Amino acid sequence: MTTIHEANLGGLALPREQAQARRDDLLQTGRYPAGTAGALMSSHYSCICSGLSASQAIDMLRREAADAETIYQSYVLDEQGNLLGTLSLRELILATPELPVEQLMVRPVLSVSTATSQEEVARLISEHDLLALPVLDRGGRLVGIVTCDDAMDVVVEEATEDFHKGALIGTHLGNLKTATVGLLYRKRVLWLVLLVFGNLFSGAGIAAFEDTIAAHIALVFFLPLLVDSGGNAGAQSATLMVRALATGEVVMRDWLSLLGRECGVALALGGTMAVAVASLGVLRGGPDIALIVASSMLVIVLLGSLIGMSLPFLLSRMKLDPATASGPLVTSIADAAGVLVYFGIASQVLDI
Amino acid sequence: MTTIHEANLGGLALPREQAQARRDDLLQTGRYPAGTAGALMSSHYSCICSGLSASQAIDMLRREAADAETIYQSYVLDEQGNLLGTLSLRELILATPELPVEQLMVRPVLSVSTATSQEEVARLISEHDLLALPVLDRGGRLVGIVTCDDAMDVVVEEATEDFHKGALIGTHLGNLKTATVGLLYRKRVLWLVLLVFGNLFSGAGIAAFEDTIAAHIALVFFLPLLVDSGGNAGAQSATLMVRALATGEVVMRDWLSLLGRECGVALALGGTMAVAVASLGVLRGGPDIALIVASSMLVIVLLGSLIGMSLPFLLSRMKLDPATASGPLVTSIADAAGVLVYFGIASQVLDI
Repeated sequence: MTTIHEANLGGLALPREQAQARRDDLLQTGRYPAGTAGALMSSHYSCICSGLSASQAIDMLRREAADAETIYQSYVLDEQGNLLGTLSLRELILATPELPVEQLMVRPVLSVSTATSQEEVARLISEHDLLALPVLDRGGRLVGIVTCDDAMDVVVEEATEDFHKGALIGTHLGNLKTATVGLLYRKRVLWLVLLVFGNLFSGAGIAAFEDTIAAHIALVFFLPLLVDSGGNAGAQSATLMVRALATGEVVMRDWLSLLGRECGVALALGGTMAVAVASLGVLRGGPDIALIVASSMLVIVLLGSLIGMSLPFLLSRMKLDPATASGPLVTSIADAAGVLVYFGIASQVLDI
Repeated sequence: MTTIHEANLGGLALPREQAQARRDDLLQTGRYPAGTAGALMSSHYSCICSGLSASQAIDMLRREAADAETIYQSYVLDEQGNLLGTLSLRELILATPELPVEQLMVRPVLSVSTATSQEEVARLISEHDLLALPVLDRGGRLVGIVTCDDAMDVVVEEATEDFHKGALIGTHLGNLKTATVGLLYRKRVLWLVLLVFGNLFSGAGIAAFEDTIAAHIALVFFLPLLVDSGGNAGAQSATLMVRALATGEVVMRDWLSLLGRECGVALALGGTMAVAVASLGVLRGGPDIALIVASSMLVIVLLGSLIGMSLPFLLSRMKLDPATASGPLVTSIADAAGVLVYFGIASQVLDI
C-alpha cells in the first residue's frame, strides 16, 4: 500500500535550495491563520524560470528531482518570483523541444491569495478539476500551492464540521472513536444547556394558555404532533439552504427570490399535513378541534419552513456560520412559534 | 478559465482504437448500476504494454497523445488485458531509458471492482492520495479508472445526500436554486406526513396521562423543554455516529464499545442539564416538581443519547442508510420516549 501511495502524487521538484529555504521560513513562522490557503498550502512546488525552452524545462525538472508535491503542474516565474503562467508536464512532453516556455504556458492563471478560505480553495479545485492551485502573496508572488489531495481532505473535513455544527456540536472534535468522555462532554454541553433555556419560551407559551389547556385537555394530545411538524419542516428547509450555501449553489442575494418559492412549497406541504391531521381531530375532539388542528398545522408548517430557510441567511449576514441553523436550533425556534400559533388559534376558535 | 481547466487533468492517451472501442462498448451498455465504480469510471486510461523500455513507454505516450483522463498514471497490462502494475510519469521520466517497465512499475496495485460503491472508491482515493484508481472486472482485467477529480465530486455529492437524508429529504434533488415547487414538495412530503403519524405516539403518551396533567397543569410548562432536550442530545449522538460511519472512522462492530462511553457522556450531560432545570422546577412548582423535572431530564437525555447513537447502527444492520437517523427521525423517537418518562416519573412522585 505504501509503495502505491508514493507512486502517485509524488513528483519532481526544482529545489533551488535558497528559494526553498526562504519559502520554508515563510511557512514555519506560522503566520497564516488556520483555515486559510496560506495555512493549507505547500511550499514544495515545481517552478520553471522564464526564458527556458521546453526541453530545458524538462531537463531541469528531471535533473533536480526532489520532494515537490507534484511535478505535473509547474509554475513559470520571472526573476522577482511573480507568477507568469502555469505549465503541465503533459504540454511540456508534447511540445517541440525548442519552444520557449512562455509560448507553452497557460495564462491567465487561476490563483488565490494566502488569506482565501480553505473552503473556497477546495471549491475552486473541485469546480475546475485542478491538480493544484497556486497561492500568491499580496505582491502577486507565488508562495505555495494547494494540491487536489489536500483539497479533498478539506472537503471531507468541512462536511464533517458542518454536520457537527448542524447538531450544535463544537468543532475540531478529531477522531470520534478515540474521543474521550470529557472531550465529548465539552463539545456537546454548551448548546444543550442553552437550548434548555431557549425552550423556556415554548414552556412560557404553554403556561400563558394554561386556562385553555385546562378547559380542553384534548388539545395537549396534538401538541407534540403539531409543534414537531413545524420543526421538521423547518429542519428540511434549513438543511437545504445550509448545504446549498456551503456548495455555492445558492448565495446571499438569492434569499428573496427563494422565499417566494418556499411559501409555495410550505403551503402545499402544510395543506397535505393539515388534511392528514383534520381527520384525527374529528375523531378525538369533534369539528372544532379538527378546524383548530388543521389550520394550526398549515400555519405552523409555513412558519417553520420560512424560519428554517431564512435562518441560514440571517446567520451568514451576521457573520456567523449558517451550518448551525440546520438542526436543533431551528427546531427549538419553530417549537416556540408552533406553541403560540396552536394555542392562539385554539383560544380564538374556542372563544376562551 | 477554460484554458486553465484544460491544462490540468488532461493527458496523453494510448488510443489503440480497437481496445478503446471495446471499452466504450462496455460503458455504453450502461450495465453498471448507478453509484458503483463501474458507473463512475472512465475507459480513457493510459496503458502500456509489458515488455517496453522506459523510453519506449514515454515515446508511446507522447506519440499516441489523445483523450486519456490522465497520463500521469498509466497501467501496465499483459496481452490478456490483466493489470500487472502501475507506473507514474514521474518514475518514467526519472528512469534509465533502457530499463524495462516491469522493473519500474509498482505492484501490488490498489484496485477496486466494478461493483465497489462510489463512496468506497472516493474514500480509497482520498485516504491514499491517489491521482487515479484502477477498476477491474471479475477476471482481473482493467476496464477503467476513476480519477481524483471524479472522486472529489462523489465526496461533495455524498455529503449533500447525507445532509438531505438527515433532514428526511428525498435524494437526487439536483441544483436547489433551479428546483421547482413540485419537485421540492415531492422530495419533502413523504417523511413529514409519516412523522405526523409517528408523533401520534407522543400524543397518545400524553393522552394516557391526562389525569396527571389536569391535576398538575404546571407540568405542561416543562414538557417542551424536557422532551426537546432528549431529542437534541439524541440528534447530537446520531449525527456523530452517522458522520463517523460515513467517513469510516467507526464501523459496525464498534457499537458495543462506544455504547459504554456514550452512557458516560450522556450521564454527565443529563446531570448538568438536570441541575439547570431543577432550579426552574423549584421556582415554578416547588420541590416535588423540581425532583420530577430533574430526574426526568437525566433519564430523558440518557435515553435520547442511547437511541441516537444506536439508531444509525440499527439502520445499517437493516441494510438501510444510517444517514436517515441524524435529524427529525431520532428527534421524534426521543420525543415519544421523553413523554413517557416524564409523565411516568411525575405520576410516581405525585402518587396519582
